[in-house]
Amino acid sequence: MNSFLSERAKNTGRSAIREILKYTQEPEVISFAGGLPKPDTFPREGLAESAARQIRDNYQNSLQYGTTEGIEEFRQEMATWLSEFGLDLELDNIIATNSSQQAIDLVCKAFLDPGDLVFCGLPTYLGAVQAFSTFQAEKVGVPLEKDGMNMEILEKKIQESKSAGKKAKFIYVIPDFQNPAGVTLSKQKRRKIFDLAEEHDLLIIEDTPYFGVRFSGDFKKPIGTYDVSGRVITITSLSKILSSGMRLAVVAGPSELLANLVTMKQSTDLCTSTTTQLIAADWLKNNSLSEHLKELRKYYKENRDAMIEEMKRSFPEDERISWTEPNGGLFIWVTLPENVDAELVFEKGLERKVAFVPGHHFYVNDGGQNTMRLSYSLLTPERIREGINRLGEVLENVLSPVSQ
Amino acid sequence: MNSFLSERAKNTGRSAIREILKYTQEPEVISFAGGLPKPDTFPREGLAESAARQIRDNYQNSLQYGTTEGIEEFRQEMATWLSEFGLDLELDNIIATNSSQQAIDLVCKAFLDPGDLVFCGLPTYLGAVQAFSTFQAEKVGVPLEKDGMNMEILEKKIQESKSAGKKAKFIYVIPDFQNPAGVTLSKQKRRKIFDLAEEHDLLIIEDTPYFGVRFSGDFKKPIGTYDVSGRVITITSLSKILSSGMRLAVVAGPSELLANLVTMKQSTDLCTSTTTQLIAADWLKNNSLSEHLKELRKYYKENRDAMIEEMKRSFPEDERISWTEPNGGLFIWVTLPENVDAELVFEKGLERKVAFVPGHHFYVNDGGQNTMRLSYSLLTPERIREGINRLGEVLENVLSPVSQ
Repeated sequence: MNSFLSERAKNTGRSAIREILKYTQEPEVISFAGGLPKPDTFPREGLAESAARQIRDNYQNSLQYGTTEGIEEFRQEMATWLSEFGLDLELDNIIATNSSQQAIDLVCKAFLDPGDLVFCGLPTYLGAVQAFSTFQAEKVGVPLEKDGMNMEILEKKIQESKSAGKKAKFIYVIPDFQNPAGVTLSKQKRRKIFDLAEEHDLLIIEDTPYFGVRFSGDFKKPIGTYDVSGRVITITSLSKILSSGMRLAVVAGPSELLANLVTMKQSTDLCTSTTTQLIAADWLKNNSLSEHLKELRKYYKENRDAMIEEMKRSFPEDERISWTEPNGGLFIWVTLPENVDAELVFEKGLERKVAFVPGHHFYVNDGGQNTMRLSYSLLTPERIREGINRLGEVLENVLSPVSQ
Repeated sequence: MNSFLSERAKNTGRSAIREILKYTQEPEVISFAGGLPKPDTFPREGLAESAARQIRDNYQNSLQYGTTEGIEEFRQEMATWLSEFGLDLELDNIIATNSSQQAIDLVCKAFLDPGDLVFCGLPTYLGAVQAFSTFQAEKVGVPLEKDGMNMEILEKKIQESKSAGKKAKFIYVIPDFQNPAGVTLSKQKRRKIFDLAEEHDLLIIEDTPYFGVRFSGDFKKPIGTYDVSGRVITITSLSKILSSGMRLAVVAGPSELLANLVTMKQSTDLCTSTTTQLIAADWLKNNSLSEHLKELRKYYKENRDAMIEEMKRSFPEDERISWTEPNGGLFIWVTLPENVDAELVFEKGLERKVAFVPGHHFYVNDGGQNTMRLSYSLLTPERIREGINRLGEVLENVLSPVSQ
C-alpha cells in the first residue's frame, strides 16, 4: 500500500524519541528521557469545577462548534496574560490553536513550499524538525551558544542561502529555556535576530512553550515585542502550565499573517475545541495564573537544583564535561568529551537502569554525538539524585581508559 | 507579506459558507444556511459529571499528553459501538483524531501529491474540497443520484484518468445522509464502489459523520465492512451526536494505512486532547449511546417532517421543483427549474428574511446553479414552517413570468 504515499509522507520519519521511550517504560529504569510535565502541577480541582460549570451551564457554546480563530473569552484572557510580558495584542492579533505543534504545522502549511529554507538551532525541538520535513523544507542548522544561536553563523548562512538563490522563509527560534538545550536567548540576540530578519526579509517563528516556567534569571521580552514590520509570529502554550491534555496554545502576531493561518486551519480541523477553550477561559477568569505559577515553578526548581547538585557530586571530574544550568523549563543539556559517543552511554545506562535521550536526535545535521538531554520534570529529587548517581558511574566507566 | 505564502496556501480559499453565514446572523432572519447541530441534543449533565470526575480523579491521564493513536479506553468504547454496525475492529484498526476534518486533512497529507486525482460527489462536503485544494489535488466530480454517485460516470471518469496517465488516489464518499444532498448510498452502490476501487487499485475514504443520526429507512453497512484488501478508511465523528465542541472523531481501517496517518499526526498536533477523549470514554462507559440517540433522532425527525410538510404546502406547484427526503442527517437538497439561479433566490430571500446556502458552493465544477441546501437542525418546527413559507413566497415571485 506504500504506492499511495505522498512525497511528503515518505519524507517524514516517526519521532525517534518515541521509540526510545519504549525502552524506558520499565519501572526500575530511572528515566530522564521523556519531556512530559508533571500533572500534579496542574490545578485539577479548579479545572474540574470550570469544566462542570462550562459544560452544564454554557453548553450552547462549550459543546458547539466555534470560530476558526478561537473563542473570544479565551483569546482575551490569554492576551491579558501576555500583555504582562510586553505583547500588546488586539483580538485579531491572537488566535487559538490545538497545541503549539499545530501552530507550527499551520505555519509550515501556510508558508513552506518544497525546497524552501528554514533556519533553526543546533540542537532544536524535534517536533518542529518533523514538521519542516513533512513540508519538504530544507533545514539549515545554526549552532547554539550559552545565550542562544551564534549570530555570526546565522548571518553567514542567510547570506549563503541568498547567494545560492534559495528561497529562505523563516528563522525558527525557541527563545526561553530551549528544548532540548535549556538555554535562553539574550536580549542582544533577540534584537539581532529581528534586525537580521528585517534586513533579509524573513519571518521569525518564536516558539516559547516554557515561557511561564521561569524560576530564576531576568525576564526577557519576546521577540514579538520588537516587531515593527509585521514579521514575527509568537507561539505559546498552556501545555506546560495549565494542562497538556487540553491541547491549547495561542499564536500572537500581525493580523495579516494570522489570517493565513486561519485559512489553513479551516481545512485542517475547522476549530480548536470550544470545550477546552472555555474550561481554560473560565479557570483563567476565576483564578490567578501568576499565583498558580509560583507553586509550579517551585516544583521544577527543586528538581533542577537536585539534578545539578548531584551532577556536580557524581559526574567524573573532567573539564571536558559541561552542562547548561537553565533558569526555567524542563531540560538540562550535557556535553561530553568529543570522542565519547552518547549512544554508547545510553546503552550502558540502560544496563544500569538509567535513561536519557542521546543529543544527536535533536540535530538536523550529523552533530551532537557527544551530547545528552536530561529532563528533571517527572521524578522526585530523591530519584533524580539516584539516577544521576547511576549515570555518573556509567560515565566513569565509559571514560576510564580500561573500557576505551 | 503575501510573498511568503506557499503554493498550497494560494490554492486555498476561505469557506464561502462562512462568509454567507455572516449575512444570516440577524435575529429576524430565519436561517436554513448553517449546518450546526443543536447543543440541546447533547447530554450536558452526563458530560459535566464525566468531565469533573476525569479531571479531578484521573488527572494523571486526562491532563497529560497521550499517545498519537489516542487513548485506549476511548478507542475501545468507539470500537465497541462501531461493532454494532458490522465493523470488526482491533485496537490497531482505530485511531482518535481531533475531528473528522482533521482525519480528512491527515488522509490528504499522507496520500496526496500535487496533481493527484480525487473522485468525489457532485455536490459534496465543502470542508473536504477545501482540504483537497490545500493539498493541490485535482478534484473529479461525479454527479449524485437519489441513491448516491452515478456509478457509470464514476467508472468512466476513473478510466479516463487512467488513459490520461494521471495518478488517481482515492474515492471520497459520504455514504449516509450526505452533506449537502441528504442522499444515502444504496447497498448495491456500496458494493460497486468497493469493486471499482479493487479493480483500479484506489483507496476509499468513507466519511460518515451523520451515521448515528438515522431516523428512518434501512440501516446499510459501512463500505469498510466490504474491505477484504485493506483499502477502505472509515471516518466517523461524535460531533453530531455527543458534542461538537469536544472535537472527537475516529478513523477505522487497516492498520498499515492508519500507521501512515499516525506518522502524519505526530507532526500535526502530537495527540488528540486526552481531556476530551477521557470525558467521552467515561460518558460512553456509564451511559447508553443507543438510548441517547433515540431522543436525538426524535428531535431531528420532527424538524425534518415539519420542513417537508411545509415545502409540500408552500412551494410553488411546479414539477421542475424537487427535493430529497433524507432518512437522517441535517440537510434537505432542493432542485429548482434549470433556468432559475439560486443566488437570485438567495438575494430575494434575504430581503424576505429567510436564508439558505446556494447549492453551487458544494460543486467542484460549475454545476448546481439551480440548487439549494436547507438545514433543519437548529430551529423549532414553528420557525421552520414560517421560514419555508417565506421561501415559498420568494420562489413564487422568482418563478412568476412577471418577475422574469
